[in-house]
Amino acid sequence: MKHLLNILDLTTEELDDLIKTALDIEANPEKYQDKCAHKTLATLFFEPSTRTRLSFESAMLSLGGSVLGFSSASASSTAKGESCADTIEVVSGYVDIIAMRHPKEGAAQVGIDHSRCPVINAGDGGHYHPTQTLADICTIYKEKGRLNNLTIGVCGDLKYGRTVHSLLACMSRYSGIKFVLISPKELALPEFEKQEFIKNKNIPYEEIQSLEEAIPQLDILYMTRIQKERFLDANEYERLKDSYVLTAEKMELAKKDMIVLHPLPRVNEISVKVDKDPRACYFEETRCGKYMRMALIMKLLKEKNEPINIEIKDTFVGDKKCANPHCITGTEQELDNLVYKDKEGFIRCAYCDSIVK
Amino acid sequence: MKHLLNILDLTTEELDDLIKTALDIEANPEKYQDKCAHKTLATLFFEPSTRTRLSFESAMLSLGGSVLGFSSASASSTAKGESCADTIEVVSGYVDIIAMRHPKEGAAQVGIDHSRCPVINAGDGGHYHPTQTLADICTIYKEKGRLNNLTIGVCGDLKYGRTVHSLLACMSRYSGIKFVLISPKELALPEFEKQEFIKNKNIPYEEIQSLEEAIPQLDILYMTRIQKERFLDANEYERLKDSYVLTAEKMELAKKDMIVLHPLPRVNEISVKVDKDPRACYFEETRCGKYMRMALIMKLLKEKNEPINIEIKDTFVGDKKCANPHCITGTEQELDNLVYKDKEGFIRCAYCDSIVK
Amino acid sequence: MKHLLNILDLTTEELDDLIKTALDIEANPEKYQDKCAHKTLATLFFEPSTRTRLSFESAMLSLGGSVLGFSSASASSTAKGESCADTIEVVSGYVDIIAMRHPKEGAAQVGIDHSRCPVINAGDGGHYHPTQTLADICTIYKEKGRLNNLTIGVCGDLKYGRTVHSLLACMSRYSGIKFVLISPKELALPEFEKQEFIKNKNIPYEEIQSLEEAIPQLDILYMTRIQKERFLDANEYERLKDSYVLTAEKMELAKKDMIVLHPLPRVNEISVKVDKDPRACYFEETRCGKYMRMALIMKLLKEKNEPINIEIKDTFVGDKKCANPHCITGTEQELDNLVYKDKEGFIRCAYCDSIVK
Repeated sequence: MKHLLNILDLTTEELDDLIKTALDIEANPEKYQDKCAHKTLATLFFEPSTRTRLSFESAMLSLGGSVLGFSSASASSTAKGESCADTIEVVSGYVDIIAMRHPKEGAAQVGIDHSRCPVINAGDGGHYHPTQTLADICTIYKEKGRLNNLTIGVCGDLKYGRTVHSLLACMSRYSGIKFVLISPKELALPEFEKQEFIKNKNIPYEEIQSLEEAIPQLDILYMTRIQKERFLDANEYERLKDSYVLTAEKMELAKKDMIVLHPLPRVNEISVKVDKDPRACYFEETRCGKYMRMALIMKLLKEKNEPINIEIKDTFVGDKKCANPHCITGTEQELDNLVYKDKEGFIRCAYCDSIVK
Repeated sequence: MKHLLNILDLTTEELDDLIKTALDIEANPEKYQDKCAHKTLATLFFEPSTRTRLSFESAMLSLGGSVLGFSSASASSTAKGESCADTIEVVSGYVDIIAMRHPKEGAAQVGIDHSRCPVINAGDGGHYHPTQTLADICTIYKEKGRLNNLTIGVCGDLKYGRTVHSLLACMSRYSGIKFVLISPKELALPEFEKQEFIKNKNIPYEEIQSLEEAIPQLDILYMTRIQKERFLDANEYERLKDSYVLTAEKMELAKKDMIVLHPLPRVNEISVKVDKDPRACYFEETRCGKYMRMALIMKLLKEKNEPINIEIKDTFVGDKKCANPHCITGTEQELDNLVYKDKEGFIRCAYCDSIVK
Repeated sequence: MKHLLNILDLTTEELDDLIKTALDIEANPEKYQDKCAHKTLATLFFEPSTRTRLSFESAMLSLGGSVLGFSSASASSTAKGESCADTIEVVSGYVDIIAMRHPKEGAAQVGIDHSRCPVINAGDGGHYHPTQTLADICTIYKEKGRLNNLTIGVCGDLKYGRTVHSLLACMSRYSGIKFVLISPKELALPEFEKQEFIKNKNIPYEEIQSLEEAIPQLDILYMTRIQKERFLDANEYERLKDSYVLTAEKMELAKKDMIVLHPLPRVNEISVKVDKDPRACYFEETRCGKYMRMALIMKLLKEKNEPINIEIKDTFVGDKKCANPHCITGTEQELDNLVYKDKEGFIRCAYCDSIVK
């Protein structure tokens, strides 16, 4: 069975097909309005995320399917101590496809391991969020006509921002790409992602602390929110949160055909004054996200009986528990300490991929 | 594009048409069961209101359409600091029509300003709640056969009760109307509404503190709940809450063909003993509310491409922020201090319509 | 109008028909996919229960119907003080059938008394939960090919476990049944249920405290969770909660064709190691539950105009309020103290069936 855990589970050819379908959906919505008649999507949101949930729900409804689910853990049996695995096991017997979001890293892997139907990872903690990247690249292709030969700036929280990591991972597979990493030192891109998605692939890149300095060379500016919930220290958050605000003034320094993306929700990191600028594509991006989710749902339902597509790691039971406090192994009951050895020889948790010391 | 912000956005001719359609829906539901096939309604409830939400949802489902949304702000991105404007901007790209409810006055105006599809105001704080009034007048027409020549008593909280203000505003446009205002002094109808909807139109009215004294002359008795959440002082609430309870005994003083309305939910302001009285029409009223919402949804979707129907005020940026603590301008980010000059020359907030000093 | 309050409202012939339909639905889902087109189910969950709610919702969606509702009281008007009766009165005017769950015993009776459409009791406090029993017996029939000549062990919380009481009540109507009651003394089956469903019917039974001792003779092992929320004393809960955990080792003592059932959610009373055992049927049971709910919804909608099927008790207004702190009469406004005299001459509350002293 096919699932979507990580954006890298999809080849660039598959991405091209999804984008092609998404743009056809946008142009001819009636062609698709009954494609999923009599099919049901479950949106299992163990943490709230209206944006993503409503996007999935409208995607399924626009395909003529139906939707059920929950929008927060407090509305689910989790409050009674039920495991994520059991919830997925049961609900996957009720529906045709699942979109799940969970605050713990690796939760989507647990979901895939226990599901009777395709699972789409709609975000598992700070780990992966592949459908946001689908929205990003569809917007880039629609606006720029290509996914190669682009100078891409990513700005804000590059340390915890999973949508940034996912975008870098995805775009690193295209040719002629340059990355410009714009962030305070405290929120710089972690060494692992830098090695994996940039250095190992010999992709040119710059690290710049000032948004003004970085902006003139960019084809794409990917803004992110400095998320309060990712900070351990509230003062640190207060000091940094306004550092990287995109204003109408800064937009004057940018190319005439640069585009601005943002995974949303924004708080104030992009001034609402920028919204009217034709280069502001973040609302367009949410609509592209819907069409890409429609294309993805159709694809996974069609390929339901094909062999599993997600990376099968050569796992074994380790002798230590994963120490990542955000990992699903810390809360899910009776989960084996599954680990695998990565290319560099490090032992990593099979769920959250962090190094197990 | 057409929206519904305030009951006065609809002419009396439009109201007549909606009622006609609503009564036809009641008589022939099958005729309408596919009218909104492939259309989606978003119910965006930034504060909970089951009654209103379920009425809208059942209305859309009975038209063959589908529904998505959220039922409280905690289940939405608002908890992450997102603005109401951004939520509407994004969701209106997913669906065909929006019903929104928000605890802040003026929020529906913000929604309309940022929406790509028709918006129905399902209540914005103490400001407007036009679809309740649609339910009220449909019930009156159905039971009395007319909307003119009626003595209408409104009882309870006339100060904060937005459904009362909306009903007075609406009914003040018909001929032969008399209003009887029944409330404690503390909760009397505010001077602004009295001037605007009664005195300026030379409508006869009485102010009576006793429900028993008022009831014999009425054709319509509109009861309202004394809402705890509208009181600053809990003792004041306790002292007044039982003052205006409608009992079977008081019903004996009323005309044989008087009808009792209530916007619901009730707590104890109408004894359940009254429910069996054929003059008790408040449950009938909820069904009328559903049919009127069906009629309204069809109307707005049909007239989607017609010019905006809501009052375009001659607004300008004021030099002071709106001081109304319940106004959306106090919480929404980067909202200009838009104001307008009313007929008397007062400067009013363009969102909540309160006077900006 | 027909409703489902208690499993005993259905005759064994009706149960046979429901099971036959459920198994046909499983085999031929397409035959049923439009059976409830243009019909709407309301899921009114005054307390959260994801498992049950999603089962009902997927049942209705798989019949081509639609669904609306709420998933907790905080998302409903109950938070504003509205009575359960009014909520049902109003919502039953919007939809074709209702599934309601409420934390108070007797709430489903209040719902039935005020509904304009069929009501399914999806759990009213510790009182009844008939659709879980439908899931149980469908699984038993599917796996064992019969509902008679079975030795049935029920394990865990037999005192508060309403699903156990309901299963015993239901199975006591078949021939060749033996019950094995496995629990700590503190959580033993109450005398009333023992008398009513076992002794009065001369059904052989044993009471055993040890799960290991009991397991070899069983055809069915019905496990239940020791629910934290049912305990007044937290220490008592901690002491007992691990006493009755089903492990792979204990499964080795059981018959090769014994089946394990559980109403779910489980916490840790069945080790996940047991899940892979082919005798573990609790996930299968959730799917049977969906099919039985589909069969039930079709049945009630078809028989909507037939006379009421639930037991009509010979009630009168008692002179004392029901003293059961979990009874709906303690919170619902203006409810008469309706009581009835049972076969032994005890006066019982007409809502929660407890003895009124």
